[in-house]
Amino acid sequence: MLIKEIESFIEEDLGYDDVSCTIVPDKPSEAVIFAKENCIIAGIKEAGSIFCYLGIQAETNLKDGDRLKEGDVIFRLKGGAVSILRAERLTLNFLGHLSGIATLTRACMDIVRQNSETTRVACTRKTTPGIRKFEKLAVAAGGGDPHRFNLSDSVMIKDNHIKLMGIEAAIEAAKKTGFTRKIEVEVESADDAVMAAKLGADIIMLDNMKPDAVRETLEILKEKGLRDLVIVEASGGISQANLEGYAKTGVDIISMGSLIHKSRWIDISLEITN
Amino acid sequence: MLIKEIESFIEEDLGYDDVSCTIVPDKPSEAVIFAKENCIIAGIKEAGSIFCYLGIQAETNLKDGDRLKEGDVIFRLKGGAVSILRAERLTLNFLGHLSGIATLTRACMDIVRQNSETTRVACTRKTTPGIRKFEKLAVAAGGGDPHRFNLSDSVMIKDNHIKLMGIEAAIEAAKKTGFTRKIEVEVESADDAVMAAKLGADIIMLDNMKPDAVRETLEILKEKGLRDLVIVEASGGISQANLEGYAKTGVDIISMGSLIHKSRWIDISLEITN
Amino acid sequence: MLIKEIESFIEEDLGYDDVSCTIVPDKPSEAVIFAKENCIIAGIKEAGSIFCYLGIQAETNLKDGDRLKEGDVIFRLKGGAVSILRAERLTLNFLGHLSGIATLTRACMDIVRQNSETTRVACTRKTTPGIRKFEKLAVAAGGGDPHRFNLSDSVMIKDNHIKLMGIEAAIEAAKKTGFTRKIEVEVESADDAVMAAKLGADIIMLDNMKPDAVRETLEILKEKGLRDLVIVEASGGISQANLEGYAKTGVDIISMGSLIHKSRWIDISLEITN
Amino acid sequence: MLIKEIESFIEEDLGYDDVSCTIVPDKPSEAVIFAKENCIIAGIKEAGSIFCYLGIQAETNLKDGDRLKEGDVIFRLKGGAVSILRAERLTLNFLGHLSGIATLTRACMDIVRQNSETTRVACTRKTTPGIRKFEKLAVAAGGGDPHRFNLSDSVMIKDNHIKLMGIEAAIEAAKKTGFTRKIEVEVESADDAVMAAKLGADIIMLDNMKPDAVRETLEILKEKGLRDLVIVEASGGISQANLEGYAKTGVDIISMGSLIHKSRWIDISLEITN
Amino acid sequence: MLIKEIESFIEEDLGYDDVSCTIVPDKPSEAVIFAKENCIIAGIKEAGSIFCYLGIQAETNLKDGDRLKEGDVIFRLKGGAVSILRAERLTLNFLGHLSGIATLTRACMDIVRQNSETTRVACTRKTTPGIRKFEKLAVAAGGGDPHRFNLSDSVMIKDNHIKLMGIEAAIEAAKKTGFTRKIEVEVESADDAVMAAKLGADIIMLDNMKPDAVRETLEILKEKGLRDLVIVEASGGISQANLEGYAKTGVDIISMGSLIHKSRWIDISLEITN
Amino acid sequence: MLIKEIESFIEEDLGYDDVSCTIVPDKPSEAVIFAKENCIIAGIKEAGSIFCYLGIQAETNLKDGDRLKEGDVIFRLKGGAVSILRAERLTLNFLGHLSGIATLTRACMDIVRQNSETTRVACTRKTTPGIRKFEKLAVAAGGGDPHRFNLSDSVMIKDNHIKLMGIEAAIEAAKKTGFTRKIEVEVESADDAVMAAKLGADIIMLDNMKPDAVRETLEILKEKGLRDLVIVEASGGISQANLEGYAKTGVDIISMGSLIHKSRWIDISLEITN
Repeated sequence: MLIKEIESFIEEDLGYDDVSCTIVPDKPSEAVIFAKENCIIAGIKEAGSIFCYLGIQAETNLKDGDRLKEGDVIFRLKGGAVSILRAERLTLNFLGHLSGIATLTRACMDIVRQNSETTRVACTRKTTPGIRKFEKLAVAAGGGDPHRFNLSDSVMIKDNHIKLMGIEAAIEAAKKTGFTRKIEVEVESADDAVMAAKLGADIIMLDNMKPDAVRETLEILKEKGLRDLVIVEASGGISQANLEGYAKTGVDIISMGSLIHKSRWIDISLEITN
Repeated sequence: MLIKEIESFIEEDLGYDDVSCTIVPDKPSEAVIFAKENCIIAGIKEAGSIFCYLGIQAETNLKDGDRLKEGDVIFRLKGGAVSILRAERLTLNFLGHLSGIATLTRACMDIVRQNSETTRVACTRKTTPGIRKFEKLAVAAGGGDPHRFNLSDSVMIKDNHIKLMGIEAAIEAAKKTGFTRKIEVEVESADDAVMAAKLGADIIMLDNMKPDAVRETLEILKEKGLRDLVIVEASGGISQANLEGYAKTGVDIISMGSLIHKSRWIDISLEITN
Repeated sequence: MLIKEIESFIEEDLGYDDVSCTIVPDKPSEAVIFAKENCIIAGIKEAGSIFCYLGIQAETNLKDGDRLKEGDVIFRLKGGAVSILRAERLTLNFLGHLSGIATLTRACMDIVRQNSETTRVACTRKTTPGIRKFEKLAVAAGGGDPHRFNLSDSVMIKDNHIKLMGIEAAIEAAKKTGFTRKIEVEVESADDAVMAAKLGADIIMLDNMKPDAVRETLEILKEKGLRDLVIVEASGGISQANLEGYAKTGVDIISMGSLIHKSRWIDISLEITN
Repeated sequence: MLIKEIESFIEEDLGYDDVSCTIVPDKPSEAVIFAKENCIIAGIKEAGSIFCYLGIQAETNLKDGDRLKEGDVIFRLKGGAVSILRAERLTLNFLGHLSGIATLTRACMDIVRQNSETTRVACTRKTTPGIRKFEKLAVAAGGGDPHRFNLSDSVMIKDNHIKLMGIEAAIEAAKKTGFTRKIEVEVESADDAVMAAKLGADIIMLDNMKPDAVRETLEILKEKGLRDLVIVEASGGISQANLEGYAKTGVDIISMGSLIHKSRWIDISLEITN
Repeated sequence: MLIKEIESFIEEDLGYDDVSCTIVPDKPSEAVIFAKENCIIAGIKEAGSIFCYLGIQAETNLKDGDRLKEGDVIFRLKGGAVSILRAERLTLNFLGHLSGIATLTRACMDIVRQNSETTRVACTRKTTPGIRKFEKLAVAAGGGDPHRFNLSDSVMIKDNHIKLMGIEAAIEAAKKTGFTRKIEVEVESADDAVMAAKLGADIIMLDNMKPDAVRETLEILKEKGLRDLVIVEASGGISQANLEGYAKTGVDIISMGSLIHKSRWIDISLEITN
Repeated sequence: MLIKEIESFIEEDLGYDDVSCTIVPDKPSEAVIFAKENCIIAGIKEAGSIFCYLGIQAETNLKDGDRLKEGDVIFRLKGGAVSILRAERLTLNFLGHLSGIATLTRACMDIVRQNSETTRVACTRKTTPGIRKFEKLAVAAGGGDPHRFNLSDSVMIKDNHIKLMGIEAAIEAAKKTGFTRKIEVEVESADDAVMAAKLGADIIMLDNMKPDAVRETLEILKEKGLRDLVIVEASGGISQANLEGYAKTGVDIISMGSLIHKSRWIDISLEITN
């Protein structure tokens, strides 16, 4: 994390004049942060940056993506009591939120792996405003793909684009933006998928198709010799509950906004030990 | 929203050079934003600020806290096609996330109202880093109480404080920080609740007590003539599932981190109509 | 101080390219900062942060609120000559301005203590734009109360509010904003003070009342059994000159914008010693 | 004011969530800002920028430096009640603080003009951290000279420089920093003043000299034919009380940190009129 | 441009208190900006944003990439004299610098088009710190390709990577970073080009090869059936002087840091006309 | 460099999530930065700040302005491989760009010194937006004068000012802005030069005069006894090619926008050595 990011997060939680932590005697103290439930941990670097900024020694041998059991210690902390109390809620908020995303992603990847050797889940641009970067890294910690980060790192042609200019003109325009970025096209039918592939799209997103329709589209692309030229992504309304059906299709990518917007936080606590 | 906040959120989603929206012809366009499920709406002002910054006319007669049915239109937009596409994901992320919190809060308040006329649910400092302000306003939109915003606007004496300096010294120190702020003390027993009330705490938080223990503590405070002098808050592990038991105790406040960390997004879409 | 605050203050004093300090040979140097008049010191942490940022070792055993005599050394500095010259004016500006506020506050508290054991002086929101946080801490260093920091940490209902909506509606609305914040009501008569207390205000501010009127209002509140339920604050046109009369009334708080807007700087100097 | 400056000042006074202004019904309202004592006004542009940012129409025909009598209206405001209440304290803080500086400066200039036709008072780098720019403009509004703004816009060689490298080397080094900036040298004796003038200093600052010593130094410079080649500035411990003596010397500039650090705020109020 | 970018550029040129533009009477004025030599214009939007921020009406019917002849008017301006003088240098600096890049890029593209129908020139990450975004858009205005913007929008495996981990491991690691980004590999021999193509690289950069070596490598890729699977880029020491040789090879992309680091500014002036 | 500047430059080159450097194993590594052509080095401090921020040990015994031969090592680096790769392009961009300016400036100073002992070249406000400070320091590194930094540090009265208010009124107005800043007047004839000198200008800029006209103007000023009272600067269309003619006139300053806008980068590389 950049120092300006750390300071911005600290300001949000401290306000103008922390009257809560400062009432304690600022003596050298020790604390542990531990998981209160099984999880995949994420946020180790983010929490570490905050401890460092506040002058707290934070020991850990974990890295994002590690599997934890209830009770496992995440960090052992040494520092002034005031600083530890100040770091508590902010670091727990990062760890709890990001580990929730990593844990859900891993659970989804586990479902996928039981049904396909190559398919991968990915998140989308449906992320909490202000912390997309950290949420995408949490998806990666859970074994998922971060997908594109913003409107600049690959071109995605969506329904509203096509409504405005047609699929062919859109791909043509996309190619002109630069040779270093992939072009993804969102389609709603096998025919459009074929057309997009022929026009040179790098990635075809099958939007809101049921697993059967996904499978059928993959077949058609294969028949036309286009399957190996494109990455195929299924998207739209997919969550942990209906993931298996999509995984069985062998599609390359299953993108799920729900990795973030249906995740819930992992319960993680800090305890002063000394 | 401040302009610097808007620009920061826009930068996150646009990146260095938006190559996705800019490929469409930038003709005058119209669009609607609508709810794809029943919900309590929140984020109207946040989305409105973003539309305004991007030069999009956005009409709505809704305000945060209004109840919507599936299909209800939230905003009618007019503006350049490029601007509308740019605003799409960011405003939907705010509306979806914040309405999820407001909707869950309202559901919890409904449970509470069926069991108590005066009890109110509140959120905590367990909020997503970077957007606490907006999440707290979403809780308020759902009829909940935002609770304190940060470590500066009231003094909360928690388990770790008490471990470090004892309850009496902590309250004494808290009083010295200023006369304008309330002092809240977290206790784990009725005895400590009585002590805190006698020492002049404004708010007593009963931490991790079962409903029966909450009820009993309220009785004891009443017997000792302390009940009307303090606001009593139940907290710890309370979610929509076990809320009813707490509501029946008649405690003043039930605080639930889960209003935020177990909320899920409401499904909201933007459609170009012209 | 946050790093971004330090850098902002340094930029203000250095400009684009410091041509004044950089002309000296940057050899290891020593300096002292000392008081040129008796004072209560404030700004120790602020100056310390700036020295630290500039790589200057700064020794002191003082803390904000300590009483200094003319000639007393505040900091002993070691560092490069260029850095010391760069730190000089900025740290002196903080120390001089903040110590001026602390010294005036202490003088006012001394007057008050000779007349009342419990009354306390407080500052207001009349602070120099940009450094309210530091000025409020200087008031605290002088033994005063910082009062609320901004429009968010407690609700104050003032004359203009009452003119717009009436006292009863205002208190009602204020209560809805949250249970964690105190409600203060500004009144101009004993009758309104009684009404506000009955409506549940936590703090009653007696605006622009003479000491006799303050005393009388306190009596009336006492007669009606309301005195112990509220904190009473006298405010409006009170300065060191007329403070004694208010102190004798036994009012809880005497708030004085003049702690800041009539303070004058303490004369503090830096001298290169080696 | 830059938008980022306005937002920074507004954040300081509003905090995370303004709970004070927002309780009033946000109806179209009118207000006046008026002076409660005679003064020289300053801060018109600063207040105007804030009103503009908050969407308030603010009419005035005053400009910084105008002389006001008690009761004179400074701004007539139209806007939503919430916005007007939000703007109130922040704009009054600017107007009160800056007008205090302008008023003191004008009073000092009046003393000077009665004794010298050409002498001018100037402020120094002793300014409140964070708002130097505005304070210097307030000095200009009062008829004073803003002096250099920071360590980059002219080179001032002070006692500590001379102690570190000697006056001759310092002037030599200063000349190398660029041909566009003046060089000022602080001296404590007529001999040093002569030496500095001969070495090509543009401005000579006579530090902590009594008026007689200033007069004598001016004579000596004149005798040696150096008087017209340099601007001579008297500085050190000069305030309104002892200013006359310095004015009578006919020195070019009298610099007074006290224009800022001994100024007191002008009493200015806002009243909702409708 | 974001408002925070505009304010940052304006602060750089205005400093703390513009004493140059403010001396003129601020009367309504008109001005033209015109080219003093033939060029391809760039920076129209950047200049437009600055005029808009400063309240200047700026008319133009040009867009980036248009060809101008000496004397052609770029903008017609109306606004206060002070604002126009303030905008002058900053907007001219953008227009002059960016048009220089666009003009050089177009000249290079002209050379390329005479020798190849499909080859395109591109810039690199050798850009002036702080304004990469604008420089890349200027390259696009001249008909060039902006290439990747930063270390995040595609993966480039360079000599130092390969030295650290080998080409195969590097491509393997790159693939794991995400499916939405292209992978480019820098190679120094035809053998490595073949290997990279076989390993799935999307783009092969031929580093510091002479045109003959480029041609030969393209032949070998063709023979092995790999030519159509990859984009081939020639890079390293290519400037306008030796560009023709590379263009004749039919390579897909010729990347030239020199588009930026050897560009010179176009001479553009502002003249007050009324 | 301020930390906020460093972070801003790093963000520009890293983007949201560096996927290029992070693929290498982050083992302790060593590297050298060396010049690939003869040059005057500049940017040592800027690069050093970036290495420091990224935790890289960077050894050098060079300072800005030193003369380097092809192959000379500039920095020896030790640090993690990922950090070194991250620092590579950004530090090279600073070193290459700024050394280009320093090298051109030194070449121009060499031409000048062969023809005049006292004349000095200077740059102007024609600088790349965002990095003026660093470019001006690079000019100083090459032996040139940085000239004024912005519109606030001296007053320059240019053609457009004179057109708006006349030369006499402009100088009068300029004097009122403060006694600490020099006043420069741009003139197009010897007559105006004489008038400006008589009116008290500190610097006379001869705009777009040929060397003969410069020489003649200097003569006229000398005849009228004004030559020693002013600094005379030649400006307008001067570059390395026609510099000699101006140097021979013995004018005090030759200002050349071309020091920056016609400079080309020096070729500098980083090589991982271990």
